[in-house]
Amino acid sequence: MREFSLLEHIFAANPTLSECVSIPPGDDMAMVSLRGTRIIAGVDQVVAGRHYRPEVTPVERIGRKAMTRCLSDVAAMAAWPVASLAAVTLPPDFGEERARKLFDAMRATAEQYRAPLVGGDVAFHADPSYPLVCAVTVLAEPLADAPSPVTRAGARTGDRIYVTGRLGGAVGDDGLGRHLDFEPRIDLAATLARRLGGHLHAMIDISDGLGRDAGHIAEQSRVRIVLDAARIPCTTACAGDWRRAAGDGEDYELCFAASAAADVPPELDGVGITPVGEVVGEWGGAGAERPDDPSTWRLTIYDAGRAVRGAELGWEHGSNARG
Amino acid sequence: MREFSLLEHIFAANPTLSECVSIPPGDDMAMVSLRGTRIIAGVDQVVAGRHYRPEVTPVERIGRKAMTRCLSDVAAMAAWPVASLAAVTLPPDFGEERARKLFDAMRATAEQYRAPLVGGDVAFHADPSYPLVCAVTVLAEPLADAPSPVTRAGARTGDRIYVTGRLGGAVGDDGLGRHLDFEPRIDLAATLARRLGGHLHAMIDISDGLGRDAGHIAEQSRVRIVLDAARIPCTTACAGDWRRAAGDGEDYELCFAASAAADVPPELDGVGITPVGEVVGEWGGAGAERPDDPSTWRLTIYDAGRAVRGAELGWEHGSNARG
Repeated sequence: MREFSLLEHIFAANPTLSECVSIPPGDDMAMVSLRGTRIIAGVDQVVAGRHYRPEVTPVERIGRKAMTRCLSDVAAMAAWPVASLAAVTLPPDFGEERARKLFDAMRATAEQYRAPLVGGDVAFHADPSYPLVCAVTVLAEPLADAPSPVTRAGARTGDRIYVTGRLGGAVGDDGLGRHLDFEPRIDLAATLARRLGGHLHAMIDISDGLGRDAGHIAEQSRVRIVLDAARIPCTTACAGDWRRAAGDGEDYELCFAASAAADVPPELDGVGITPVGEVVGEWGGAGAERPDDPSTWRLTIYDAGRAVRGAELGWEHGSNARG
Repeated sequence: MREFSLLEHIFAANPTLSECVSIPPGDDMAMVSLRGTRIIAGVDQVVAGRHYRPEVTPVERIGRKAMTRCLSDVAAMAAWPVASLAAVTLPPDFGEERARKLFDAMRATAEQYRAPLVGGDVAFHADPSYPLVCAVTVLAEPLADAPSPVTRAGARTGDRIYVTGRLGGAVGDDGLGRHLDFEPRIDLAATLARRLGGHLHAMIDISDGLGRDAGHIAEQSRVRIVLDAARIPCTTACAGDWRRAAGDGEDYELCFAASAAADVPPELDGVGITPVGEVVGEWGGAGAERPDDPSTWRLTIYDAGRAVRGAELGWEHGSNARG
């Protein structure tokens, strides 16, 4: 059972989706229009044993990640946060002091990124052995002074593909690391959208790994993307190992497509921006992909002349690729 | 550890809550204003072993309840649904067919009540023994042709207290029953708000039991409410047992306060509306409540002359009142 097949099922041809839904399900967030005002909304979860190791992770960092995972989706849309809501299910023996620390961290993180926590629900598991589950919904609005929101669906043939920061090794061998403390790229995305204007065609945040997530841009835009393995910016944790950089996931950096004419700086607000590939043509759809023919793949990474299929890299949060 | 103390902590004096938050946390839903448009948002969860018995409950009814619990909050505000988002954590062996049925039920229920599912996240537990958790966020808007939203905070001395439908026995001995199939009172609440206009002062949906939920109106409105046990409309399941009717919870009927001058019909859209008490004066706060003095209690139920404190009835979803 895979996450994407289920989400596709949930959102399969939905004839009654009203006209007020202006970005349909399937992007980082959805957009609805209400009396002419556009509201962007998305939900994400952090589950003990799945998104962090409960035995080593301080409760403050759990609360922070529950909020920042969802805020990273706001960055991916080049949108601006407005408010957040949290639903938390706690083991009955979690302890009031720890629960307070968890909620304090969620609230402080929400405020830090201008998405004040306005609603919440707390439930308790029937059994102490059951895991903590935090679901966070964020509401956002489009930027007023830039083309916004930026979806996954706008990449065009000839576009260049970029990533922010450095990738790989976000989850340390000890279970801690950058995946708990990353900075949602909200301000950087806004700066990019303002600077590139209509040249910024598509964007996503990298949670499943560059291989899969650039593939989501390709899929939603119906284009073929080719990446150059040698150009993927690796963290020191996985220096030289581009497969880890493209496959580890949980980077929460941005991957975006911009027209070749765009003036993309090598660095913005202190964060490096690296061209890693380009859009080479139209994509024929999943049914047209042939395992032995890279010219049919939505995403291909060339490693010293050898073609690697993007779908082989990265992981789905629902798969068993990680314990 | 109790739900309310935690929620109070989460939302304790929040100095950075921006001015766009026009109904602060603590009501059935929150309201934020975005470029002059008011958006109402709330989140609620359904957890296996806590809100339903997984061994007997058909998956379609789980999906329905996950959505209707949150939609009942929309009714409580006399608001109008716009869209919904769902975050679901599944046991890894839940099965694709069952997952499809669950999501189909959520999607169909969302559409039935005009809150199309526009976003979602699916995660998987690390262990098959862990319980299904469904968190649903609903976005709504105020009614255009009535005073809306209706909060918990507007009840005034002299108001009458009413409930819709009949109460008690929503969770059958077999774990099934009305708590899975109730009708969120969205249309009824809208009809009430239009008919009563400014006479409709406060409203809540009954999830924790009339005793506790009418107490929430009293608390938020800073008033004292007195109910007459003999007038509480009981279902046949608990005929004559007003303590069960006021304490069982999970009724998802409405409790509201309306001015004595309001023309409240005995029935609306086929649903009975019963006066059960009144607002008798100001309330001095939790610190001023003395266990031996009913004149200090926020909520008192008189049973043949004997005063019963509302806080003694009903249950919190987080308590151990139910397994």
